[in-house]
Amino acid sequence: MCRWIAYTGTPVFLSRVLFEPEHSLIDQSLHSRMGVETTNGDGFGVGWYTQDTTTPAVLRDVGPAWNNRNLQEVAHHVRSGLFFGHIRASTGTAVQQTNCHPFRHGRWMWMHNGMISGFHRFRRDLVLTVDPALYPDIEGSTDSELMFFLALTFGLAEDPPGAVARMAGLIEKTGHAHDVPYPLQMTIAVADGERVWAFRYSSEGRSRSLYYSTKVDALRALHPETSFLRDISDETRLVVSEPLGALPGAWNEVPESSYGVIQPGGDALHAFRPQLHDGPLPA
Amino acid sequence: MCRWIAYTGTPVFLSRVLFEPEHSLIDQSLHSRMGVETTNGDGFGVGWYTQDTTTPAVLRDVGPAWNNRNLQEVAHHVRSGLFFGHIRASTGTAVQQTNCHPFRHGRWMWMHNGMISGFHRFRRDLVLTVDPALYPDIEGSTDSELMFFLALTFGLAEDPPGAVARMAGLIEKTGHAHDVPYPLQMTIAVADGERVWAFRYSSEGRSRSLYYSTKVDALRALHPETSFLRDISDETRLVVSEPLGALPGAWNEVPESSYGVIQPGGDALHAFRPQLHDGPLPA
Amino acid sequence: MCRWIAYTGTPVFLSRVLFEPEHSLIDQSLHSRMGVETTNGDGFGVGWYTQDTTTPAVLRDVGPAWNNRNLQEVAHHVRSGLFFGHIRASTGTAVQQTNCHPFRHGRWMWMHNGMISGFHRFRRDLVLTVDPALYPDIEGSTDSELMFFLALTFGLAEDPPGAVARMAGLIEKTGHAHDVPYPLQMTIAVADGERVWAFRYSSEGRSRSLYYSTKVDALRALHPETSFLRDISDETRLVVSEPLGALPGAWNEVPESSYGVIQPGGDALHAFRPQLHDGPLPA
Amino acid sequence: MCRWIAYTGTPVFLSRVLFEPEHSLIDQSLHSRMGVETTNGDGFGVGWYTQDTTTPAVLRDVGPAWNNRNLQEVAHHVRSGLFFGHIRASTGTAVQQTNCHPFRHGRWMWMHNGMISGFHRFRRDLVLTVDPALYPDIEGSTDSELMFFLALTFGLAEDPPGAVARMAGLIEKTGHAHDVPYPLQMTIAVADGERVWAFRYSSEGRSRSLYYSTKVDALRALHPETSFLRDISDETRLVVSEPLGALPGAWNEVPESSYGVIQPGGDALHAFRPQLHDGPLPA
Repeated sequence: MCRWIAYTGTPVFLSRVLFEPEHSLIDQSLHSRMGVETTNGDGFGVGWYTQDTTTPAVLRDVGPAWNNRNLQEVAHHVRSGLFFGHIRASTGTAVQQTNCHPFRHGRWMWMHNGMISGFHRFRRDLVLTVDPALYPDIEGSTDSELMFFLALTFGLAEDPPGAVARMAGLIEKTGHAHDVPYPLQMTIAVADGERVWAFRYSSEGRSRSLYYSTKVDALRALHPETSFLRDISDETRLVVSEPLGALPGAWNEVPESSYGVIQPGGDALHAFRPQLHDGPLPA
Repeated sequence: MCRWIAYTGTPVFLSRVLFEPEHSLIDQSLHSRMGVETTNGDGFGVGWYTQDTTTPAVLRDVGPAWNNRNLQEVAHHVRSGLFFGHIRASTGTAVQQTNCHPFRHGRWMWMHNGMISGFHRFRRDLVLTVDPALYPDIEGSTDSELMFFLALTFGLAEDPPGAVARMAGLIEKTGHAHDVPYPLQMTIAVADGERVWAFRYSSEGRSRSLYYSTKVDALRALHPETSFLRDISDETRLVVSEPLGALPGAWNEVPESSYGVIQPGGDALHAFRPQLHDGPLPA
Repeated sequence: MCRWIAYTGTPVFLSRVLFEPEHSLIDQSLHSRMGVETTNGDGFGVGWYTQDTTTPAVLRDVGPAWNNRNLQEVAHHVRSGLFFGHIRASTGTAVQQTNCHPFRHGRWMWMHNGMISGFHRFRRDLVLTVDPALYPDIEGSTDSELMFFLALTFGLAEDPPGAVARMAGLIEKTGHAHDVPYPLQMTIAVADGERVWAFRYSSEGRSRSLYYSTKVDALRALHPETSFLRDISDETRLVVSEPLGALPGAWNEVPESSYGVIQPGGDALHAFRPQLHDGPLPA
Repeated sequence: MCRWIAYTGTPVFLSRVLFEPEHSLIDQSLHSRMGVETTNGDGFGVGWYTQDTTTPAVLRDVGPAWNNRNLQEVAHHVRSGLFFGHIRASTGTAVQQTNCHPFRHGRWMWMHNGMISGFHRFRRDLVLTVDPALYPDIEGSTDSELMFFLALTFGLAEDPPGAVARMAGLIEKTGHAHDVPYPLQMTIAVADGERVWAFRYSSEGRSRSLYYSTKVDALRALHPETSFLRDISDETRLVVSEPLGALPGAWNEVPESSYGVIQPGGDALHAFRPQLHDGPLPA
């Protein structure tokens, strides 16, 4: 039950997005308006891609984001053209670095807002499905990290939307087998360093909020006075749990049961539906 | 800008007071109703007196109280008949253990809610007044700890109300000299292991909230069904920033500009007025 | 690869044992003489039983023990007649509270020095053997905690030496199946609040060091000048990874492949041999 | 009582210098060979200059460097052409972020190995000399940060060697007045983003070790097989408490009572002598 932000576009200091907007992610860590919890103080993380490295950097810590000095330092001195920010409100699992988002595997980065209902009752069943070769890399105890490893198991590297659909299908099937009527609640962002996929789904059809930013050229026409909009390219895009700032026309809700992909050459929005995986897992 | 609680009476597990009440201090760390800030997640502390030791124990940490496991462990396994609990919302100084309340010096324990306005402009002047023999024991950077050391300098060990009055007088005088109209805002609890003094004062006459509990025998007559009241002696007393629970008749506001002393043989409530210290400091 | 101490006997402040001896556990955290690593700075824990509670308290943190103030506070203000202390040198798993010893389950407490060789290759196989009803309580990622849960699965509550023998047997069998010649290296302490069992074993027959203290009456005759010995009962006993202090005659090596039980009415030392568990698990 | 490293030259990932060398700074945090303490586990810091910002970034934390994941992340994903690394062994002051090096003020960065003897006896006298306009920026309680603020008070921005000499002169004079025969022990690095000054001095004439690297062109001729040397410019230079790696001819001792300046256009080594500041402080 968290808040998150994904940025892709013109490389900027992380602070321009994480700290400077009026209702920024860091401000949301103290005063979320739309989250189930108003305080998200159980750890945080930022992950960013840089040139010259094959993996993203991930900075995570267990205290609140709002008073963390290392986050301030990094955000004000590191530029990136693709980064994630996440603030956590624990739903019961331990407050520790290995439970903070974003999670990373190779060049992949993953973060989540939501929960698996009844997780403690069928976590073991889900863990057993994780590819044994991936299993040793699970470090924490959250449902969110396990969802990532299930998606990796189901072919995230080849087909992100398909892998996430099969992950969701497995969780719903397993939850139903344990008499949980609505097992899954999720908004997810996942990136490979070039593209970002953002998913909004819940078994109940009442998903956590998710928004994407309006195209920059349209926004610029609406708000010619906003200097930040002049500094960034037309391709720049944000996806957020909760709108930042108060720019009319800036935010569009991601529809229920859908996902978007943000990529060079054109973004797209599609329907999302969990799938049952019946065949053998990808080798 | 914090919340605090002081307990004195029948020895109980700290958890009975810190965690179990409906609107407990730990719950207030997430959702304060009466504080200036609704979240108090910038560190916490508990301090308790035990038999056989001359000093109180102080457990302090920099994360939020609500997710701290060591606090849970200690609170559920340690009994005390005189203890303090404090949750912090930083007003700017660093989030570090040495800035967490309660502060301790010998057998004395001190905690504070409020602030010195314009502190950064005249902190140096105040520090210079601290007894040079006490100065090396200042470890943190808060106004609250400095207020403690000023009170120690002004004779806290011999005359707590007088020492606090002289501390307040010095802060107001110094603040006024720096053109701060209302320099002081405070509720303070201080204990020596047997007695607790609780102060409510602000230069402006609009002090932070402070409450003390009704006498246990009267409460027991009002609420015969409440088992906790049967377990504690008539002498048991709480002083709190914000009422706990929803027991009608349980809480009384400490009046503006006053202080109370809770002690064996009879509690008392007095007017509080800052004093100017003109003579030499106590040897 | 850690150091630990187990104390049972006359209730004392934890500091008498953890801090005061010449070569104390806390001193060992900086300068171990006998450990594989000389520095044990990757977290620590103390666990103690008190009257009036059914579970032990466990205080754990991720920094070094030698500079932790909360450990100092608790150790100097809490008395116990049965407590554990542990300092950690990580063998690769994350430095987080849930990986710090001692581990607790109900009234049981467990700590370990050593490692499972090749753990990452067959951790999943071992996890699958844990009783599904216990599985959700695993919080960390260490071999040590998993060994505890295997012992719980194999009947620790009814037959501690048998359960530990079956745990060791499973680990050796599984390790051998993965071509690890010497899968297990361990010294373990486990307690239920009244008794302490201490095990020393390794597949290779070259186990980590383990010592138990000489009977107090004999020690008192040898060292009539040592005041601590006058304050504790004849029944008081310590088991340690590495001798404390420099009292000649005070320490006896636990033999290879053996375990001791410290209990009211008479301690005992027995041979230890891993067992294969072939039948159904205890209900 | 710490270890430190200063790098200036070709921009590289911090990890190339902090983690990769055989006897790297991070390795020294566990196993220092030349320090007074062999373990430096009481916090660490790295500070780096980047293009486009006027201040350096500073990442500091209270645990040991050797197990800190955020340090790993930043070091493997951030490049810089001028950075500091520091590992701390506390000489008594609190283990907290504000006591970790490097310290920063505007574009200036400062770190220290050594101590002021008798600091607690005359810290107050030294603090009183700090420019009152700078005083509010002191955040921690170390001698090292106070030395920085004294140097700032004495004109660090205009004349770094002179300001450090006056700082040293004041400390020696004040120490002698308190009957401390050898008040100062220091190796210091200070940078403004373009140049680095490194000082080695002690009142006793037995200063902590300090080394600077041989010119890269000479080293390259000696070790044509070392690839790192081919990647860096002739101007690249390291100054270190303790030599890294095992490259014969790579390290030269900074002489007693001297300082070096590393700057574009030519490095230089000079004698260092404390000075008494008698006139008014710089405005």
